[in-house]
Amino acid sequence: MNSAFSTVTADRAVPLPQEFTQVRKYSETLCAPLEIEDYGIQTIPDVSPPKWHLAHTSWFFETFLLKPFLKHYQEFDDHYAHLFNSYYEQIGTYHPRPERGLLSRPTVKQIYAYRQHVNAAMLVLLAQETLPDYPEIVRRCIIGLHHEQQHQELLLTDIKHIFSYNPLRPVYRELPISNINHTAELSWHEQPGGVYEIGAGAARQFAYDNETPRHKIYLNSFRIASRLVTNGEYLEFMHAGGYYNPAYWLSDGWKIVQTQHWQAPLYWVKQDMQWYEMTLGGVRKLDAHTPVSHVSLYEAHAYANWCNKRLPREAEWEIVARQQPITGNLRDTGYLQPMPADLQGLAQFYGDVWEWTQSSYSPYPGYRADSGALGEYNSKFMSSQVVLRGGSCVTPQNHIRATYRNFFYPGDRWQFSGIRLAEDIT
Amino acid sequence: MNSAFSTVTADRAVPLPQEFTQVRKYSETLCAPLEIEDYGIQTIPDVSPPKWHLAHTSWFFETFLLKPFLKHYQEFDDHYAHLFNSYYEQIGTYHPRPERGLLSRPTVKQIYAYRQHVNAAMLVLLAQETLPDYPEIVRRCIIGLHHEQQHQELLLTDIKHIFSYNPLRPVYRELPISNINHTAELSWHEQPGGVYEIGAGAARQFAYDNETPRHKIYLNSFRIASRLVTNGEYLEFMHAGGYYNPAYWLSDGWKIVQTQHWQAPLYWVKQDMQWYEMTLGGVRKLDAHTPVSHVSLYEAHAYANWCNKRLPREAEWEIVARQQPITGNLRDTGYLQPMPADLQGLAQFYGDVWEWTQSSYSPYPGYRADSGALGEYNSKFMSSQVVLRGGSCVTPQNHIRATYRNFFYPGDRWQFSGIRLAEDIT
Amino acid sequence: MNSAFSTVTADRAVPLPQEFTQVRKYSETLCAPLEIEDYGIQTIPDVSPPKWHLAHTSWFFETFLLKPFLKHYQEFDDHYAHLFNSYYEQIGTYHPRPERGLLSRPTVKQIYAYRQHVNAAMLVLLAQETLPDYPEIVRRCIIGLHHEQQHQELLLTDIKHIFSYNPLRPVYRELPISNINHTAELSWHEQPGGVYEIGAGAARQFAYDNETPRHKIYLNSFRIASRLVTNGEYLEFMHAGGYYNPAYWLSDGWKIVQTQHWQAPLYWVKQDMQWYEMTLGGVRKLDAHTPVSHVSLYEAHAYANWCNKRLPREAEWEIVARQQPITGNLRDTGYLQPMPADLQGLAQFYGDVWEWTQSSYSPYPGYRADSGALGEYNSKFMSSQVVLRGGSCVTPQNHIRATYRNFFYPGDRWQFSGIRLAEDIT
Amino acid sequence: MNSAFSTVTADRAVPLPQEFTQVRKYSETLCAPLEIEDYGIQTIPDVSPPKWHLAHTSWFFETFLLKPFLKHYQEFDDHYAHLFNSYYEQIGTYHPRPERGLLSRPTVKQIYAYRQHVNAAMLVLLAQETLPDYPEIVRRCIIGLHHEQQHQELLLTDIKHIFSYNPLRPVYRELPISNINHTAELSWHEQPGGVYEIGAGAARQFAYDNETPRHKIYLNSFRIASRLVTNGEYLEFMHAGGYYNPAYWLSDGWKIVQTQHWQAPLYWVKQDMQWYEMTLGGVRKLDAHTPVSHVSLYEAHAYANWCNKRLPREAEWEIVARQQPITGNLRDTGYLQPMPADLQGLAQFYGDVWEWTQSSYSPYPGYRADSGALGEYNSKFMSSQVVLRGGSCVTPQNHIRATYRNFFYPGDRWQFSGIRLAEDIT
Ligand SMILES: [Fe+3]
Ligand SMILES: [Fe+3]
Ligand SMILES: [Fe+3]
Ligand SMILES: [Fe+3]
Repeated sequence: MNSAFSTVTADRAVPLPQEFTQVRKYSETLCAPLEIEDYGIQTIPDVSPPKWHLAHTSWFFETFLLKPFLKHYQEFDDHYAHLFNSYYEQIGTYHPRPERGLLSRPTVKQIYAYRQHVNAAMLVLLAQETLPDYPEIVRRCIIGLHHEQQHQELLLTDIKHIFSYNPLRPVYRELPISNINHTAELSWHEQPGGVYEIGAGAARQFAYDNETPRHKIYLNSFRIASRLVTNGEYLEFMHAGGYYNPAYWLSDGWKIVQTQHWQAPLYWVKQDMQWYEMTLGGVRKLDAHTPVSHVSLYEAHAYANWCNKRLPREAEWEIVARQQPITGNLRDTGYLQPMPADLQGLAQFYGDVWEWTQSSYSPYPGYRADSGALGEYNSKFMSSQVVLRGGSCVTPQNHIRATYRNFFYPGDRWQFSGIRLAEDIT
Repeated sequence: MNSAFSTVTADRAVPLPQEFTQVRKYSETLCAPLEIEDYGIQTIPDVSPPKWHLAHTSWFFETFLLKPFLKHYQEFDDHYAHLFNSYYEQIGTYHPRPERGLLSRPTVKQIYAYRQHVNAAMLVLLAQETLPDYPEIVRRCIIGLHHEQQHQELLLTDIKHIFSYNPLRPVYRELPISNINHTAELSWHEQPGGVYEIGAGAARQFAYDNETPRHKIYLNSFRIASRLVTNGEYLEFMHAGGYYNPAYWLSDGWKIVQTQHWQAPLYWVKQDMQWYEMTLGGVRKLDAHTPVSHVSLYEAHAYANWCNKRLPREAEWEIVARQQPITGNLRDTGYLQPMPADLQGLAQFYGDVWEWTQSSYSPYPGYRADSGALGEYNSKFMSSQVVLRGGSCVTPQNHIRATYRNFFYPGDRWQFSGIRLAEDIT
Repeated sequence: MNSAFSTVTADRAVPLPQEFTQVRKYSETLCAPLEIEDYGIQTIPDVSPPKWHLAHTSWFFETFLLKPFLKHYQEFDDHYAHLFNSYYEQIGTYHPRPERGLLSRPTVKQIYAYRQHVNAAMLVLLAQETLPDYPEIVRRCIIGLHHEQQHQELLLTDIKHIFSYNPLRPVYRELPISNINHTAELSWHEQPGGVYEIGAGAARQFAYDNETPRHKIYLNSFRIASRLVTNGEYLEFMHAGGYYNPAYWLSDGWKIVQTQHWQAPLYWVKQDMQWYEMTLGGVRKLDAHTPVSHVSLYEAHAYANWCNKRLPREAEWEIVARQQPITGNLRDTGYLQPMPADLQGLAQFYGDVWEWTQSSYSPYPGYRADSGALGEYNSKFMSSQVVLRGGSCVTPQNHIRATYRNFFYPGDRWQFSGIRLAEDIT
Repeated sequence: MNSAFSTVTADRAVPLPQEFTQVRKYSETLCAPLEIEDYGIQTIPDVSPPKWHLAHTSWFFETFLLKPFLKHYQEFDDHYAHLFNSYYEQIGTYHPRPERGLLSRPTVKQIYAYRQHVNAAMLVLLAQETLPDYPEIVRRCIIGLHHEQQHQELLLTDIKHIFSYNPLRPVYRELPISNINHTAELSWHEQPGGVYEIGAGAARQFAYDNETPRHKIYLNSFRIASRLVTNGEYLEFMHAGGYYNPAYWLSDGWKIVQTQHWQAPLYWVKQDMQWYEMTLGGVRKLDAHTPVSHVSLYEAHAYANWCNKRLPREAEWEIVARQQPITGNLRDTGYLQPMPADLQGLAQFYGDVWEWTQSSYSPYPGYRADSGALGEYNSKFMSSQVVLRGGSCVTPQNHIRATYRNFFYPGDRWQFSGIRLAEDIT
């Protein structure tokens, strides 16, 4: 049996068909506030149009489940294999990523019809429990649902980016405002050095192949901050000339600071000598107590450097985080913005913002990519990217876990990404 | 009185308010076949989203007529001044041209409401015939209508380009097919040399400032072809290796041939050893008798060179064309594609395709740009562009005239642009 | 007989072999102040390394004279055909222009040996006066000498550019300083309209093919300035915010102003609130009386616009200039910098700076390019470039004439190019 | 005391002044075969002109030793601080890296004079053993010598690149040809898992700060190949379509393969159906037994993937390599090309080619950058680069060690970089 993407079919809270329907439905719920015109925009190559996300996630089920396993399955439109393949070279050609925003057709309506077509067929397939391939069907379906959840997060980050490019400053929806007007004091958790095991193991929980296998690592003693760095703290770095002093920066980052004229996190805007922040709820006055968000690895590194601290290694993060309950300001709270830490002690490991680590994204010892085209899901991205941990305020709670490895390029800023500090004990 | 854009208010076929309503309405009629999603796409910086055209042409009336002349005029939305200014530096800031396709808002519905708002106000203004500024109001209104007609042509060329980028090959509307399956033989019109007058004069007809003043020029004797170059003739150039032999090409053109890998006119596609052409009516087998279209100045020049001919000067074109009636395959025929010349003799001067001349776009002797921001309309583009003459199958008949000067960069191909040959008599 | 590049063999001041030797020698004289290291630098694609000029001009004689006409001619090195062909597609491949500065070999010494080899063979060839091809040999040789003179001018402009990129501010040679500390008042020469003839005719003087044939044109009455625009006058434009006001600029020029951050002519540098200018003699305080130099067509146009004047047409320039003797601050004065006009009346038509016209570079009526590869010399550049007239302080006196058409792209500034104003008489 | 760059002054084979003189002299010896023209070329931003290397290494001593420590030291030329600073932001401004090849001045002669000036002053300084700062002087001097050795390697790799761009195919010097016409069979060394220590420790040997501190890591059991991958083996990958099958490639690498049209290692050229290789000794027929060289991390990864193997982690490499004597085909052999492995067993760990690991370049636990500007030497490059180990045929033997960490971007190919395979024991 394939060890990657290992999964479990028993013990599900709800039957798989019902979960399938819920997850699939949620993608559409997320799009409810959109105008038809919003569905088609691609501001930068990293961002995909919302309708592309809706279609691509359906293509995933059609390609990896319906076509191989559902007898007499009727493809919805044979152009879609090309249009909605993201990057699976072994599946066939794909539409160039930077041109996803140039496709007015299929229309939003057609894409919703596509979703319905795929959903209906999937429910037929999931009912065929006696098929010899049924375990593989279940396994792939669960991957497909996790995949859909990832794209749900991207839907929100991409909508935010799309709206940020529009001088009319559209609002996705009214967001609740935090009534916490303070930040818990930052304390340091000490962890003794030694051999630890990290990664996803035989436990009866879903994991992507890149989280496996569970393996030993050696860590030196270290300290990790109890909470995330706040906007207010980050402002001090800015006031200290952080964006103007190369001494704090990685060389590649300093080049971007100069060529892109970075002077603040991505969505910050200064008006009348006052900082504001674009959010999914519109432009708001910057809250000093909220975790800083939408910073690149370069900014996170420069900030840590300025503090004489460093970013955590991903293993450090994991062995501390796994002692915490998986709760926090995740998508389920509905805030869709990071929130201040109000209680003392270890906090904000899950939710609020993805936490940049200093670990580059690379295979674990003994790693084997999933077989076939699904093996491209994670493995081929293992160069020049950096691991982020813990999920954000737009990550579904049942999607995140202590072993989860997200990864982006060090200059990426359009995700909800922030900073937790660490340091060596010497 | 301002000599540029000189115009005449008497003798109108229909009263100005009625003409205003007709022209404005037609822009919307042109968009009737579009899906909402089609309105927002910008494939390349040259192409604007259809909804941008609809809004910008309204902005023109709002900016140059309603704001300065209509008392108590209520601006529709104060962001639009920035969003829908195309390039008038003296008016204020404008949204970067390459980012017109990134604006999902305002929605199509809002833009139609904007049009209605502007139309209603314009009709109020046009009724105020006793205003002291009324002559200037009429003058600008007429410019605005010609401007709107230009954008109507762009609507069609841009929709064609947008659809051409979509692998689903959308069809704008079914187009009638020509039943002419031959081409009139090409003959040569001889024109004796001497001093001529060209340009728009005191005649009671609208003209842009760049057509004025009427002035003398000296021309040598020359010959000009009776009809346009056909697809079939252009194919001979291709079969003779035209795209592979630098000897025929201007140096700048040859660089593009190599870097962009040009091997045929813009919308030609080869399938199964057979040439097809994308049209507003979908993909069609290439018709050898139809004028070649969507070629750049470089291709037109190379073709002419290969034939040992040359392109006409704009003055040569004008003095021959003005002897012809202004009829032809213009937008009013509804073909929306060039059509073969079926009768002997001088033909196709108006309509079918814009005809590249060898004249670069520059001011006539004595030229004065219109005053104020409207002076930017034409004058600031007088470098590195080339004059085209005669209108195309998507130009309204009442928009074109013998003195009309269109202009594009020598590498542009997304307009309906083609080739008429000329030669010196020596 | 080929009408282009028509030439005359009688009446030469000195015998051709002697002239050949003089011109060839002068290229080397110009390089005498250089260090070996200076010979190889290419700062931008437009600029060629000095040693490349020395080799390419030799390649010209080898390719168009020695190989076709000198029996048993032994090629110096068969790689040079590729390395030192500039752009003649019909001759064969050529080394990419932007990579001329990446060639350390052949060494400077080898290139001087190449020159000697070619020179010796050329003198053998020029002695064979009884060859049936001798008239063609003479014709081509004279073209080759004019070609060499053009590259002599480029040698100086390119060395200036190369030195300008070096923070050590190398000096080419000490230059004499003008003792004229005033400027002649600007007056206006009036020329009545009518039919004129311009271009190079049957006269017994060398001309490039692009100056032919002599032909009639019609000109309206106009005025042309008696002298060039000075640095002091140009500074007024700058102080009036010329580089910050788009109203004066052509659209393409304004884009460059913004993206390249142009704020002054090319070689101007501001230090301690004072303007200086880089010259071949080092950095000097800006002289207000000297003609402004190293401006692009865009700057020339913007300046003229700001003055409510315009640039002259090339025909206007020619019919006035041909009434003047061909004298002025040409290379032969040794100033290698423009100098103030000190006497009233028409001045500075020849020398000082090339004068931007508003005429784009295009073929004269009846123009025929030279046959064969030499036809590429001029004809294939007839798009998007603009004509300049009159020569500069680095043009040899016996190279310039009233009909001479130089041409550069409107954004080019590394030549000695300046401004003479004109206006319509209405 | 500063733990980074820790060093030892006792036990030196030769006294420091003598070592200083030897190392400095060797840089000049390496340049002996060059023409003056070769000294100034920069083919790509990564490559520096040889004369820049000669000057920059002198600047290093001037900046970090002479200016701070030698009383009355007279700077050679105050422009050099800007011209020859490579990237030390804390020292001051520096000339843009991609423009190093545009500086004809200072001349080669001047740079040799600069070297002499610095050398003389350094010998004075090194004689002042009673200075209180003398230990720091020694420490920095030793860093400076290692720095010089690094640039000696770059001199050779950059000269190779410079010559490779020249169609004349210059030869640096005649190279001895291997008489080994076989390759030792590849065997696998097994290493049991467990906790190991790696990195540079308290031992009395020089190390860069990035090798410290010595620290524990945990490794799983693994196998590592006894020798490097050969050209012949790599050819099999190519014949199997390796450059055409995305399945083997990292996503970022596949993009480069397509956009740069990679089809073979950097210096391979195909002529008449036969592969050749550019070397410092000229173009040679490809030797199947020689280790493949000048491959990027992407190619190394794809090759390993195709074999169902992987690249080693840097720790794996280190614990095996440190059991080997530091001998091999290093610069001292004079081959300046990789050579075949002829004996069975672990081989080629040192010399021949730098071995790509799968470890990205990041700080060791407890790492502290050197203080002051010297801290920029290594630390600011710790993003997006990959570690290579073991030195190459152009690395001096007394420069390499088991803990040495070299680093380049995954797409870099102009270094002597190759492939050693590894695999997990499961
Ligand atoms: Fe996906
Ligand atoms: Fe417009
Ligand atoms: Fe030339
Ligand atoms: Fe260095």
